[in-house]
Amino acid sequence: MVLKVYGPLFASPKRVLVTLVEKGVPFETVHVDLPTEEHKQPPYLELQPFGQVPVVFDGDYKIFESRAVMRYVAEKYRSQGPELLGKTLEERGQVEQWLDVEAVNYHPPLLNLTMHVMLAPVMGFTPDEKLIKESEEKLAQVLDVYEAHLSQNKYLAGDFISLADLAHLPFTDYLVGPIGKAYMIKDRKHVSAWWDDISSRPSWKEVIEKFRLPFLN
Amino acid sequence: MVLKVYGPLFASPKRVLVTLVEKGVPFETVHVDLPTEEHKQPPYLELQPFGQVPVVFDGDYKIFESRAVMRYVAEKYRSQGPELLGKTLEERGQVEQWLDVEAVNYHPPLLNLTMHVMLAPVMGFTPDEKLIKESEEKLAQVLDVYEAHLSQNKYLAGDFISLADLAHLPFTDYLVGPIGKAYMIKDRKHVSAWWDDISSRPSWKEVIEKFRLPFLN
Repeated sequence: MVLKVYGPLFASPKRVLVTLVEKGVPFETVHVDLPTEEHKQPPYLELQPFGQVPVVFDGDYKIFESRAVMRYVAEKYRSQGPELLGKTLEERGQVEQWLDVEAVNYHPPLLNLTMHVMLAPVMGFTPDEKLIKESEEKLAQVLDVYEAHLSQNKYLAGDFISLADLAHLPFTDYLVGPIGKAYMIKDRKHVSAWWDDISSRPSWKEVIEKFRLPFLN
Repeated sequence: MVLKVYGPLFASPKRVLVTLVEKGVPFETVHVDLPTEEHKQPPYLELQPFGQVPVVFDGDYKIFESRAVMRYVAEKYRSQGPELLGKTLEERGQVEQWLDVEAVNYHPPLLNLTMHVMLAPVMGFTPDEKLIKESEEKLAQVLDVYEAHLSQNKYLAGDFISLADLAHLPFTDYLVGPIGKAYMIKDRKHVSAWWDDISSRPSWKEVIEKFRLPFLN
């Protein structure tokens, strides 16, 4: 029974996909058509009541929220591939800390930039310029903390790659690409080296080559 | 060596405190004076570079982000008190799923209500009425999903209390109290029963009796 991941073309599901590839876990994908709002209609809402991607099935077992699925996969397949949760209680604590930093500090302003810079022209709404400015300022402050932290640590949770790093991949890929603000990464020496490291992993290259939003090609 | 929790008067640190009390783990607290912005100044920023409470020390080991600290405590003291992470991989997956739902779906609109309804008068800024309205609508949608889910499940992750439930306590306590929107909970039968259950736990009563914001008394 292979894992089934819904919505592979979109960013949050790619957190799950990159984890599966890292751990060498076979999976299938199911397209969810966000542009036609398939995710806001009953058949999909019965799978994921908040109308968000991804939802993942492991046989009959259902789980959603991308970072929760990452943890589930890393725990279930702990004995294969890289140890993405840390080896000790203390390392796991740092992985959890930086996973939560990504979710609550890093992601919200970056999601605003994704919506209002990258998606507004595609979806046909007027971008909120004030929100763009505030979000870039907020993200810059967060990245300044990352810069100081990564000057002392190769990866976010310490000297080992973990889920915390991988969770940053999909939306940062938008930031340096279609959002057009690569300078936010490149102008920070240690953040830039970290980004080059994690984004050049074969797992991530495989995910973005296989699952690409058509309108970003 | 007892755990040291910074900022116990405030809401996010109470996620950690209630977990510590549930697990019977001794702790000390260190006041952080948010009204004078102590958390945005160098001595505190060296402990928590994002300028947020809590930060927690377990001897020399430092960890922040309240939900990450909850996980660390529940894992370290797994053998005592209630099992707050679920007993199996699948249960743990559901705990993680609902912890992330709290962090990314439930908390952001509730934080807006906390800032603009409860804190604006105390902090002396003009509340954003449009944001209040949008946040209440967003939170209502999330609570509708909770209502359906809790009609089938006693607790968020299933039939057992977990970190996912406890993570909701501090800010929902504001919602039904000083924010003045208890109807959002009370008007939903299953959410209301769940709230009565979790908020009447002796651990939570102990935390709110011992650590109360002076201006909410």
